[in-house]
Amino acid sequence: MSMVSFDKSILKASLVDLFGRLHVSSKDAAYIADVLIRADQWGVASHGVLRVERYVECLLSGGIKPDAEFTVEKKLNGWAQASANGGLGIPASCKATELVISLAREYGIGVVNLRQSHHNGAEGVYANEIARAGMAGMVMSTGNPIMAVTGSAEATIGNNPFSYAVPAGKYDTLMMDVAMSAVADGKVQLARAMGKELQPGCILDKNGNPSVIPEEYLDGGVLLPFGAHKGYGLAVMVECFAGILSGAALTHEINSWNETPGKCGNTGHLFLAMDISKMMPVAQFTAQVETMIGQFKSARKMQGVEEVFYPGELEHRRLASAGETVSVIPSTWESLCRAAQLVGTDAPQHL
Amino acid sequence: MSMVSFDKSILKASLVDLFGRLHVSSKDAAYIADVLIRADQWGVASHGVLRVERYVECLLSGGIKPDAEFTVEKKLNGWAQASANGGLGIPASCKATELVISLAREYGIGVVNLRQSHHNGAEGVYANEIARAGMAGMVMSTGNPIMAVTGSAEATIGNNPFSYAVPAGKYDTLMMDVAMSAVADGKVQLARAMGKELQPGCILDKNGNPSVIPEEYLDGGVLLPFGAHKGYGLAVMVECFAGILSGAALTHEINSWNETPGKCGNTGHLFLAMDISKMMPVAQFTAQVETMIGQFKSARKMQGVEEVFYPGELEHRRLASAGETVSVIPSTWESLCRAAQLVGTDAPQHL
Repeated sequence: MSMVSFDKSILKASLVDLFGRLHVSSKDAAYIADVLIRADQWGVASHGVLRVERYVECLLSGGIKPDAEFTVEKKLNGWAQASANGGLGIPASCKATELVISLAREYGIGVVNLRQSHHNGAEGVYANEIARAGMAGMVMSTGNPIMAVTGSAEATIGNNPFSYAVPAGKYDTLMMDVAMSAVADGKVQLARAMGKELQPGCILDKNGNPSVIPEEYLDGGVLLPFGAHKGYGLAVMVECFAGILSGAALTHEINSWNETPGKCGNTGHLFLAMDISKMMPVAQFTAQVETMIGQFKSARKMQGVEEVFYPGELEHRRLASAGETVSVIPSTWESLCRAAQLVGTDAPQHL
Repeated sequence: MSMVSFDKSILKASLVDLFGRLHVSSKDAAYIADVLIRADQWGVASHGVLRVERYVECLLSGGIKPDAEFTVEKKLNGWAQASANGGLGIPASCKATELVISLAREYGIGVVNLRQSHHNGAEGVYANEIARAGMAGMVMSTGNPIMAVTGSAEATIGNNPFSYAVPAGKYDTLMMDVAMSAVADGKVQLARAMGKELQPGCILDKNGNPSVIPEEYLDGGVLLPFGAHKGYGLAVMVECFAGILSGAALTHEINSWNETPGKCGNTGHLFLAMDISKMMPVAQFTAQVETMIGQFKSARKMQGVEEVFYPGELEHRRLASAGETVSVIPSTWESLCRAAQLVGTDAPQHL
């Protein structure tokens, strides 16, 4: 499959222009472009510029307000309750990340709960920014139900992503960003296209029976949590800490941006930052992280494995090798063209 | 298998007496008895009074100091760095829980990092206490390596348990307490005893090949994280937040209480509490949790499933049905008898 590539700064300028035509401020549009491009350069294409088209649809149909402000509704020491007021999830999450870092700088620990928000891309980007500020960070987000809680046979909870990151000295940052389903919807579609079966424990068919056949998920089945009750419990944790505690919508009240792009998602997020330097020299912390990563790297390998990767290593490598280029698959390029057409402008110029 | 049962208060008095003979204060001994008995009554027998014998061995061989104080070494607003100073993990964790609740009451959010600690039983007990105080809580702990990080074929990290709990109104608390291995060592032993195979993805054999045969784990194999790289990433998170950030020992420097009972484990823990009432009425929070649990309960069921349980529900039910009785399997009773013998006293009187 031949990729379509862009110069990073040209792609960013094009996206800033596109969102500007929809009355998004240039600052907010730059946040969106940066976060989506970062995901593509990390190799997380599912959360990259592929999402532009859907953001445009939500903006055009009124489900996302282009000029909503990020407001802090309540604050106590390092803890703030904020609202995106029905605006874009990415700019609001970038502002929440900046806020939580400044709160942690002042109080040691910062937490920002965010409500009235929307899809915010690859949330590992925000956790990574907290780590790059020398802090230990966690970020979590709710989504509309697409996964069955253990024992149920229908969509009862979102796959509620959870991420964390810490500074890792010479290794850049150590980070993880995972959703709670055993397998992503996109991976099931891919397995069907390739005629492959899934691992056991990933899906139920429409009758509530375990299945490994992709078609049986796509025909009214449902995704299962990873690690059975463990992933279930973690998804519920995110619902409680990022959703309920933020005053955001609960489970089925969260509007799906795919099914009802004209309604505010009202997703919830939680951002946590701990300023390591308040308790120990950051170099002491990162020296231990480096030692740990060194242990992983030098451990005896599984048969057939050449290298052990620390969490986040593959993303950092892909980013470094991408340099000033952003590459997407042809269907994502087509999606970008459709988005530009919806706005009545030109698609970004590719290389 | 016929269980051996005790009156709860007689068992507690007996354990307080036993630990008192080892120079543990009656207050600390009561903490130990309460936490272990709670685990047994929750049905988490692996973390119940079965552990008394090993605590006694560690106390007798000097690996745990019976009279170590719990000290706060550094504090900034709601964040405290504390040390168990080589003492018992359970009393130190109970004091850390009380401290984090009072910090959250004062500052909104409290975090206690704890080092120079030891095995602390079922850490869900502490998260549950935070929830019972009307707060959202998280607790995590490090342990010595017994699990292979993804791609490695030897023990490279602990199975680093993680727990959380929130108040849930009429449902008592909602809580989860999980270790990061796909299956516990004890479960592999049980599978062998029953002649059963394991699910794929749980173990590697001594040559670093995936296996489902319990004997191949017991013969020099290793446990794998649950959910592959997801469980790996979560175990690393706990190592960073509860271990490194607490100034506790790192991975292989953590002394195994099984292999070197005469040395301080120097495990690390993190306790986090968020006082919900500072941001919204607790009743508003719990009403949403109740609604969510109601949705889980009324969801269409998987084939063969009669009821969907919310996280922690089974533990609460077992506790309620246990009442004033604590029941253990015969081998745990024998272990209690050995512990009493080591201390030169009588085993607890059973019913």
